[in-house]
Amino acid sequence: MRICVVGCGAVGSLFAANLASLDEVEVWAYDLAAEHVAAINDGGLRLVGAGEVHAIGIRATSDAAELPRCDFGLVATKAMHTLAAIEATAHAFRHGCVASVQNGVGNEETIAAHAERVIRGTTFPAGKILEPGIVQWDVKGDTTFGPFEPRPAATAAIEQLADACTRGGMPSQAVADARGAQWRKVIFNASTNPIGALTGLTHGRVCELPPLRAFVTGLVDEGKAVATAQGIELDAEPEDLIDHAARPDVAYGHKASMLQDVEARRQTEIDYLNGGIVRFGREHGVATPLNEAVVALIKGMERSWIEN
Amino acid sequence: MRICVVGCGAVGSLFAANLASLDEVEVWAYDLAAEHVAAINDGGLRLVGAGEVHAIGIRATSDAAELPRCDFGLVATKAMHTLAAIEATAHAFRHGCVASVQNGVGNEETIAAHAERVIRGTTFPAGKILEPGIVQWDVKGDTTFGPFEPRPAATAAIEQLADACTRGGMPSQAVADARGAQWRKVIFNASTNPIGALTGLTHGRVCELPPLRAFVTGLVDEGKAVATAQGIELDAEPEDLIDHAARPDVAYGHKASMLQDVEARRQTEIDYLNGGIVRFGREHGVATPLNEAVVALIKGMERSWIEN
Repeated sequence: MRICVVGCGAVGSLFAANLASLDEVEVWAYDLAAEHVAAINDGGLRLVGAGEVHAIGIRATSDAAELPRCDFGLVATKAMHTLAAIEATAHAFRHGCVASVQNGVGNEETIAAHAERVIRGTTFPAGKILEPGIVQWDVKGDTTFGPFEPRPAATAAIEQLADACTRGGMPSQAVADARGAQWRKVIFNASTNPIGALTGLTHGRVCELPPLRAFVTGLVDEGKAVATAQGIELDAEPEDLIDHAARPDVAYGHKASMLQDVEARRQTEIDYLNGGIVRFGREHGVATPLNEAVVALIKGMERSWIEN
Repeated sequence: MRICVVGCGAVGSLFAANLASLDEVEVWAYDLAAEHVAAINDGGLRLVGAGEVHAIGIRATSDAAELPRCDFGLVATKAMHTLAAIEATAHAFRHGCVASVQNGVGNEETIAAHAERVIRGTTFPAGKILEPGIVQWDVKGDTTFGPFEPRPAATAAIEQLADACTRGGMPSQAVADARGAQWRKVIFNASTNPIGALTGLTHGRVCELPPLRAFVTGLVDEGKAVATAQGIELDAEPEDLIDHAARPDVAYGHKASMLQDVEARRQTEIDYLNGGIVRFGREHGVATPLNEAVVALIKGMERSWIEN
């Protein structure tokens, strides 16, 4: 089986390195970061932290034309780069399936414009690139795969991918409807990530301040209403995940990725988190004023980095 | 006539220096900033910028016990310092009237717990202290005085104060109901100040981004609903003031005072701006979810400055 990870950042690297441990899987990695690509080809891809992996044999490239025909694509770019990434690599998946393991909602729609068989995916593991070729594995967690309804991959293919990931070290489930897991995660992210980014507080400290925790619940409630309007049943309660993550032994002191983004003045994924909730809400007649406010504030903050 | 300015920061200094130009007015200034007090006593109080004034003869002190009996108090502290300031100085106003020229709502209620005759005031001029004894006068503007309904000063006294301010160089009106002007200003401030503080954008740039401008309108609408529920008729449309201030020749490039506060990591007046709208809304059964969110975010930001 040949799998290409499209976007070999932190999350993509977790999949690539773990899948490369399987004899029967040939792993390719497509990424535009030349130094990371060179390091992977030269010395292999190393994971440290929650799991220690040293994967050799991954074939990394920044030139999509080099990609051979693959059975699976695993798109792991930041959400705003999905279109460019799938446009560049789609030829490799003409006979295969393409899964998203990205943040937010709307990525599968973008992929489906360039791929025939699409897998909806949601993943909880997280990490960060320490240096080219070396990735810190911060948080272990589960992955859920299911068909993207308008252009679904076959159930057998979805199960094959989930099975390979699980055996490789990334526990994954194939389900008939992955929207419940995906919307739980987007609601979690949208309701906590930008609050950390706007205030500068870690996840645990956001949850400690009652008015801020109440605002988080306001955002969660809007997200749930948008999920319900689409007929999506969440696989678990997002509030439980928020409270769980606030525990000192879990992610109390964790700076949300969006807080890391704004501290580094990098464009955020707000359009695919709260922006996605607003967009799907509008399509289904659900008002989302608090999520709209959060989108406006984060985009205002991004704008402030550009001198007028 | 003897007037004591309580809190001789930027706005207090504008009143003190201008009133001191009148022969028949004796001006005292109570302030805790020892260097500013010493500079005023030594070399006078100087205004530069929109108006040039050099006031000598103001008697400044940080010791409230030194204050003589005054006809008028003009409280100009930051809103969170109202209680301490009026507790310290109330003895000087036992036979006089006390007016607020502060930001936000709720200041008169605090003053009225320690003063018999209270004047509701709203002022638009703005400035900043450049160094002890020297204040930059940024924006000229009008002041409105009226009775604080539960413990009102006499109409004649309110007119006397407004007349003195006007003749001194701070155009002021005495009106039967000052709530319309006060709520227009608090709605303007609450709907724009914290947006600048959260995003880092100047007033004009906030107004340029349509989603952010829409959020501003959402905040304005909640404020108007709270005013209406109290039977307050705004003296003019806050949206007009917002658009006017966004003009390049007015305050396009102005950093809201709350943005200046958060950049300096100073506690903000959020509790008396959006927090005041939320509080009066709750008392009158008006929901204010957007203003609540803004309070929570700014208080979260203030908290982030304190290491955990």
